Amino acid sequence: MSSIHEECGLFGIYAPENCDVAGATYYGLFALQHRGQESCGIVVCNDGLFRYHKDVGLVGDVFTPRIMNDLGEGNMAVGHVRYSTTGEPQRRNAQPIVVNHIKGHMALAHNGNLVNSFELRSELEMQGSIFHSTSDSEVIAYVITKERLSCGSIEEAVFRSMDRLDGAYSLVVMSPTKLIAARDRHGFRPLCIGQCSDGCFIVASESCAVEAVGGQFIRDIRPGEVLVIDKNGMRSIYDESKAVPQSLCVFEYVYFARPDSFIDGYSVHDARRRAGAFLAQDSPVEADVVIGVPDSGISAALGYAEESGIPYGIGFIKNKYIGRTFIAPGQAHREDRVKIKLNPVSATVKGKRVVMIDDSIVRGTTMAQIVKLLRDAGAKEIHVRSSAPPFLNPCYYGTDIDSRDKLIACKYTVDEICRIIGADSLAYLDTKHVAEIADPSLGICHACFSGEYPTKEPGPHPKHRFEVRLSDRDKEDDA
Amino acid sequence: MSSIHEECGLFGIYAPENCDVAGATYYGLFALQHRGQESCGIVVCNDGLFRYHKDVGLVGDVFTPRIMNDLGEGNMAVGHVRYSTTGEPQRRNAQPIVVNHIKGHMALAHNGNLVNSFELRSELEMQGSIFHSTSDSEVIAYVITKERLSCGSIEEAVFRSMDRLDGAYSLVVMSPTKLIAARDRHGFRPLCIGQCSDGCFIVASESCAVEAVGGQFIRDIRPGEVLVIDKNGMRSIYDESKAVPQSLCVFEYVYFARPDSFIDGYSVHDARRRAGAFLAQDSPVEADVVIGVPDSGISAALGYAEESGIPYGIGFIKNKYIGRTFIAPGQAHREDRVKIKLNPVSATVKGKRVVMIDDSIVRGTTMAQIVKLLRDAGAKEIHVRSSAPPFLNPCYYGTDIDSRDKLIACKYTVDEICRIIGADSLAYLDTKHVAEIADPSLGICHACFSGEYPTKEPGPHPKHRFEVRLSDRDKEDDA
Amino acid sequence: MSSIHEECGLFGIYAPENCDVAGATYYGLFALQHRGQESCGIVVCNDGLFRYHKDVGLVGDVFTPRIMNDLGEGNMAVGHVRYSTTGEPQRRNAQPIVVNHIKGHMALAHNGNLVNSFELRSELEMQGSIFHSTSDSEVIAYVITKERLSCGSIEEAVFRSMDRLDGAYSLVVMSPTKLIAARDRHGFRPLCIGQCSDGCFIVASESCAVEAVGGQFIRDIRPGEVLVIDKNGMRSIYDESKAVPQSLCVFEYVYFARPDSFIDGYSVHDARRRAGAFLAQDSPVEADVVIGVPDSGISAALGYAEESGIPYGIGFIKNKYIGRTFIAPGQAHREDRVKIKLNPVSATVKGKRVVMIDDSIVRGTTMAQIVKLLRDAGAKEIHVRSSAPPFLNPCYYGTDIDSRDKLIACKYTVDEICRIIGADSLAYLDTKHVAEIADPSLGICHACFSGEYPTKEPGPHPKHRFEVRLSDRDKEDDA
Amino acid sequence: MSSIHEECGLFGIYAPENCDVAGATYYGLFALQHRGQESCGIVVCNDGLFRYHKDVGLVGDVFTPRIMNDLGEGNMAVGHVRYSTTGEPQRRNAQPIVVNHIKGHMALAHNGNLVNSFELRSELEMQGSIFHSTSDSEVIAYVITKERLSCGSIEEAVFRSMDRLDGAYSLVVMSPTKLIAARDRHGFRPLCIGQCSDGCFIVASESCAVEAVGGQFIRDIRPGEVLVIDKNGMRSIYDESKAVPQSLCVFEYVYFARPDSFIDGYSVHDARRRAGAFLAQDSPVEADVVIGVPDSGISAALGYAEESGIPYGIGFIKNKYIGRTFIAPGQAHREDRVKIKLNPVSATVKGKRVVMIDDSIVRGTTMAQIVKLLRDAGAKEIHVRSSAPPFLNPCYYGTDIDSRDKLIACKYTVDEICRIIGADSLAYLDTKHVAEIADPSLGICHACFSGEYPTKEPGPHPKHRFEVRLSDRDKEDDA
Repeated sequence: MSSIHEECGLFGIYAPENCDVAGATYYGLFALQHRGQESCGIVVCNDGLFRYHKDVGLVGDVFTPRIMNDLGEGNMAVGHVRYSTTGEPQRRNAQPIVVNHIKGHMALAHNGNLVNSFELRSELEMQGSIFHSTSDSEVIAYVITKERLSCGSIEEAVFRSMDRLDGAYSLVVMSPTKLIAARDRHGFRPLCIGQCSDGCFIVASESCAVEAVGGQFIRDIRPGEVLVIDKNGMRSIYDESKAVPQSLCVFEYVYFARPDSFIDGYSVHDARRRAGAFLAQDSPVEADVVIGVPDSGISAALGYAEESGIPYGIGFIKNKYIGRTFIAPGQAHREDRVKIKLNPVSATVKGKRVVMIDDSIVRGTTMAQIVKLLRDAGAKEIHVRSSAPPFLNPCYYGTDIDSRDKLIACKYTVDEICRIIGADSLAYLDTKHVAEIADPSLGICHACFSGEYPTKEPGPHPKHRFEVRLSDRDKEDDA
Repeated sequence: MSSIHEECGLFGIYAPENCDVAGATYYGLFALQHRGQESCGIVVCNDGLFRYHKDVGLVGDVFTPRIMNDLGEGNMAVGHVRYSTTGEPQRRNAQPIVVNHIKGHMALAHNGNLVNSFELRSELEMQGSIFHSTSDSEVIAYVITKERLSCGSIEEAVFRSMDRLDGAYSLVVMSPTKLIAARDRHGFRPLCIGQCSDGCFIVASESCAVEAVGGQFIRDIRPGEVLVIDKNGMRSIYDESKAVPQSLCVFEYVYFARPDSFIDGYSVHDARRRAGAFLAQDSPVEADVVIGVPDSGISAALGYAEESGIPYGIGFIKNKYIGRTFIAPGQAHREDRVKIKLNPVSATVKGKRVVMIDDSIVRGTTMAQIVKLLRDAGAKEIHVRSSAPPFLNPCYYGTDIDSRDKLIACKYTVDEICRIIGADSLAYLDTKHVAEIADPSLGICHACFSGEYPTKEPGPHPKHRFEVRLSDRDKEDDA
Repeated sequence: MSSIHEECGLFGIYAPENCDVAGATYYGLFALQHRGQESCGIVVCNDGLFRYHKDVGLVGDVFTPRIMNDLGEGNMAVGHVRYSTTGEPQRRNAQPIVVNHIKGHMALAHNGNLVNSFELRSELEMQGSIFHSTSDSEVIAYVITKERLSCGSIEEAVFRSMDRLDGAYSLVVMSPTKLIAARDRHGFRPLCIGQCSDGCFIVASESCAVEAVGGQFIRDIRPGEVLVIDKNGMRSIYDESKAVPQSLCVFEYVYFARPDSFIDGYSVHDARRRAGAFLAQDSPVEADVVIGVPDSGISAALGYAEESGIPYGIGFIKNKYIGRTFIAPGQAHREDRVKIKLNPVSATVKGKRVVMIDDSIVRGTTMAQIVKLLRDAGAKEIHVRSSAPPFLNPCYYGTDIDSRDKLIACKYTVDEICRIIGADSLAYLDTKHVAEIADPSLGICHACFSGEYPTKEPGPHPKHRFEVRLSDRDKEDDA
Repeated sequence: MSSIHEECGLFGIYAPENCDVAGATYYGLFALQHRGQESCGIVVCNDGLFRYHKDVGLVGDVFTPRIMNDLGEGNMAVGHVRYSTTGEPQRRNAQPIVVNHIKGHMALAHNGNLVNSFELRSELEMQGSIFHSTSDSEVIAYVITKERLSCGSIEEAVFRSMDRLDGAYSLVVMSPTKLIAARDRHGFRPLCIGQCSDGCFIVASESCAVEAVGGQFIRDIRPGEVLVIDKNGMRSIYDESKAVPQSLCVFEYVYFARPDSFIDGYSVHDARRRAGAFLAQDSPVEADVVIGVPDSGISAALGYAEESGIPYGIGFIKNKYIGRTFIAPGQAHREDRVKIKLNPVSATVKGKRVVMIDDSIVRGTTMAQIVKLLRDAGAKEIHVRSSAPPFLNPCYYGTDIDSRDKLIACKYTVDEICRIIGADSLAYLDTKHVAEIADPSLGICHACFSGEYPTKEPGPHPKHRFEVRLSDRDKEDDA
């Protein structure tokens, strides 16, 4: 029930010969739809020619049969689903981006956020470059293109660009003959590779997308690795000397990814169960039933129930028809908006002492409504457990966390928050366990809890001139 | 994961004074969307004037802000969601229907199937009546209108019509001044009444819709009862002498209704858990984990786990973006179509002996695919349990069950089916328990399992002339 | 440039064997689109089965390739385009209507207005009939159905219904085996028959639609005639003894019909030229150029020029992209809305004495704007000539003329109107010439000018109960 | 009735203070819609911020009230309508383009075709530039941006760019503070300036768009001139020393422009009448009536009639509902597709000797169908006159003329063509008169007739790598 958003899901396919790569990408994006619901796009490569379509909307709405037919067959494709963090969903920001340069053309799909995009952009503009958007993806495309001028292959250009790009970026790049996957040196965002029985290679943000097209998961792309797939098969470019400790975003486990995915070697479902188990160990309570807030609280609730011995129950029914189309008409009869999305199962909670697990508490308002729903449904006691620690810091790597002044944990103590949300008790996952919910050897980014950032922090980010009103700046003598 | 369909969900509201009744109906239909996804409609009454909109599509797609605005305020509204059993979804079959007659006008929403609609229709046509559709609803509207000519009120007309209508019908009827709810004497389909704190009365197919608009459930409409709501409040018309034993459709518990609803006094979630518990008692097996097929197998799986002591696990992730818009493009990479909708959580099932509960087995093809998914995900043993008995007979009351030649249970023994679907063991709920999954005093229709029909069966149903090709019939001398 | 509206265009086709009758109807309706732009519909009959589609919008928007494909082949089809006189365009009022009755089913398309529909409707309701709309078409369908009960064929039922229906109605009716065309005894609205080289019979409101599908015009349907087309060919039912003098609506010539059509034996283009010639004879003026207001003033202007010897010129360019989609955004820069639609050709009018012909003057506001446009473009004198006499009376036969209090001719003298619109002189066609613009032997309805109605006038028309607010009427004891 | 297409219409507005500039641009584009029907776009500048919307479709379809509202107020706006010469209409090619560069941002709308875009593009790519499209407009934006790096103002950058850009280009450029209009040194495409009474400056491709927003035409932009409008008013940059003789595209008069527009000082309507008059002088014939093929043949027909003394008549009715939405369903009843668009007025032509004027003859197939329509309608003789000379050469400046092998005039003599189209006589405007249809002092490009090109011809145009299939080129060792 979190209101945190991630920005993207990536998918790429390389087939030994022309086939319905667009259809496979469609299925792959469907499986990744949870990573971004605002816009989506598919680029198909057929004998070096690119055909593409991008638009605002869900995969199933944007890619009509007619459009799928227009995309046609090919031997490679790249797809993208996107959540935009600012303003209206806009068609022009949909990815993948497709550009032409000296060596031909290139499609690029990107997940993450750079911390030095402003510097890179300014430098490029000083050389006369023009930008059609304000996205990091266009900056990355430019950096790769500039490198390409002086090196022998597109994959080398991508690899060299990693010296210049700082921050979070998983990339899928398609040239007329090659499919390239890359992951920043910190490994903030996931990216994995799989293969189908017919020889197709699949690159995807999560393993569930590999499975959705009938493929077998092979392995995760390593942080700092560039993987090239072409007619000669798959090969890796990697420089051990430039390795840094991994910083996988913890929210990939806690909230973003699908429970049936494996990320960097560990099951998302198990990571959540383990978070629930830690909560049961650290913050036990006498209760009759453990319930989870759908969807991401369910696995953690099961972990809490298993560890505590308290029975697991189905606490809520989530209305599965609530989508982008849901409007909230009129005024009457809807104090309880959250009730439209989530209705408690009173048969489960009436007269019971309830432990309720959710993935996080951001502003606290939704949690307060959920607690009230349970009370109204007859719960006798309500013990809230959050499977993430309190949010205290902004994220610069692509997770859309509210500014500090809206984060409830920045303003109140746990006891105060417990009272505000109306619970009988409240506990968070201890930050010390964050690194333990998956394989302890895996490095995890917990900057949003701890404030320890694995990269430099972006300087005081001057909004780009593109978005500056004349009245807000010193008038230039001449624009 | 059943492919059985119900035909409708009903919603009605009566407000003490003009307010956003359309908005409330929108929310109510949203909560009932699972009962019908093909078309929907809302009729608003404002000072005796009706405004309405109906179309093919989901509630959230059909009712745009502009249309909600056009509907405007009112003191009564009737809404409907529909699944059509035949052919293309058609706008013309959307409900509620709105008709004008000698006493003014009337909106009518209907859930169920008559068994004597052909006879009624023929009789009406002999009197010169014309029909705009082939729906039972139009027949019911005519019967009520004819009765209305000779009786003093619309509610009396509805009540008298019940002597003529045979079969399954829950009705919500709206005249310029009254909201009327009625349920056939067998009580096949649910219908309940609730009230909001501001005095609004709510009529709905399921209690979850009453809750969705912030109302309190009052009680179920009794089989054979007509409930009238007008400016004088609520009153009931009922004739004890005409009562027959109830025959609530068992699938309301097993599949159609939402787990958070109560129907005829019993929790749907609990009924499903109880079905799971009966399965654990009658068909136990040694296993490591119990999983349910989403959505309707989940509650039963929990019941099985509780009764058997085997741990409950999350076996599948259902893609929540699969909706009406899902197309299945191209040819490649989709032998496993079901995999797009449902992906196994290998962390739960790998290397395990799995009990898997689903609500029913109709043709068997989907179940075979699901079993295969589990095998591919590494399940060691797969024991399938169906929370409904085998389907052996057609339903005449509005449930869309395949014809006998497509029902796997009509053609094979349980052992054969087990082999066909590839399971290690298979068991169904014993028909004797059907009457026990809810309150044992509640009469339940189990004709689809037992062949014991509570009404006459419709005669050899001659397709209506409307749908008969000239080449298929004796040419009339003159059409 | 008139703001007068007609209600409908009709098209029917009977083919010797199955073919693309839907495609032909599409083309036919395209040619009739000027007769109604709000909604349209096509019903196809294939071996006795009806398939149909109706919606709000232009023919080219409503009938997408997918829908045309769904309609499929057939041996008969009926089509309709409609302009609705009241309120929002509504899908439910789209025609043809399709109904089922005792003898099968029937599609019906109607052009015109009854004067006794209220009486007929009340009588039917007293017998228990229900209505889905407030349209005359549904009343006509009922009347035909009632007659059908006691007579041997659908065509006889249509013919007998003419004794009961009073007012304006051209009809195309389709049964499972027959296509029937009928025209009221006064012949208010046009209807003609044609044939294609492949043997198809075509029925259409105007001859231009016959030509649009490659057919040859045969003749007009006679007032009071019923024409039946079936596998035995075409035959006529007509009763000389019931004949009354014809009253063809003069606006079919002056404004509604396309200039390339022939109606009741006379060219529309020639009728307009003749009106222009009468104006030149009766209201001559010294001038340098004669221009017409597009579209319907063009032919009359040519007639004026020919008769007067003053050169004809192109005075305006009409923006051909102004359609239903034209919105009028914002506030600035559009005092002259009419300028968006119509721009004067200053090369034609600058420094000239201009005679400008329009088809009619209704409220006078548009004419005042047009005169101003010409002045701004440099015209030295502007002499306005209207090819119709002044409107003084309402029309009951389907022409949407403003109520008297909005008709400028009801409130001012010709001299006053001339001053109001800013012209240098103004003259109307003399009413005595109305009967002469076509063949003088043809009877023409000129009630809107003369007040002489060829039928009874409808009584004080009580709005139907369907549209009466409770607060506006004596409350019924029981609705 | 020509099938020749132009590529664009431009509109720009500069207001003294914030107002509904988007609304004015909407009206302006409506008036220019005939110059491009495939896509359109509007960019609004409000205090230095740009808001824009572009899409495939007509102005009235793309700019819904909601989108107009989103665009909001501003003090400048640029709009564009576009016809794309190749393939499917594509959203990504819609203009104006909006880019960000070192000095802020820039919107650019372009009409015409460069002859050196391939060279410019290659040079830019060698410097690491990336392109999002294959359009000339993006090349122009880059050239301007590069110049901007080393000069003091955007207008100077535009002016300097003219030294580098070769071919046809009328431009409207918007910076955060200035509106700039420019026209290539040959003046191939029109562009004019006007002003409204409230002080707004208007830039538009044709004067009819100035009038559509209530403005007064001031003058045409001079070939080679850059016009800057900002808070200090309007000023011109022009270098006499670089002037070359003008080469206005003759088709602006003959076909593209609206008759009510003035271009480079001469009325389009009059230019067409004059072409008609020349035809009457050079190619007289005895006849009863002169008709024009709508829309662009009408003015020339009037000129022919005036010069010859033969009466002018209305020969065809063009169906005004034929738009982008027109589909051609099915197979039957449409040998005569052109008949759907154009129906002869038999009252005008039956039994007559007809002179028929059209703007041009390209492939000849449409003309043959039109001649047949007239014959079928009863014309006794048909004398075809083309108000343009025969097409013999390709156009490199933005007019979409078929390749030589499809141009009928490249393959047959006039007599042969006359026989092919089935006319009784045929004559073309003599090329010597082309320069005389407007002011004889005005230089006109007639390369498509004469083969005398005013610029260098583009070399053998290698399709850009972007559009080259791998299989069609030498495989690069590494892409």
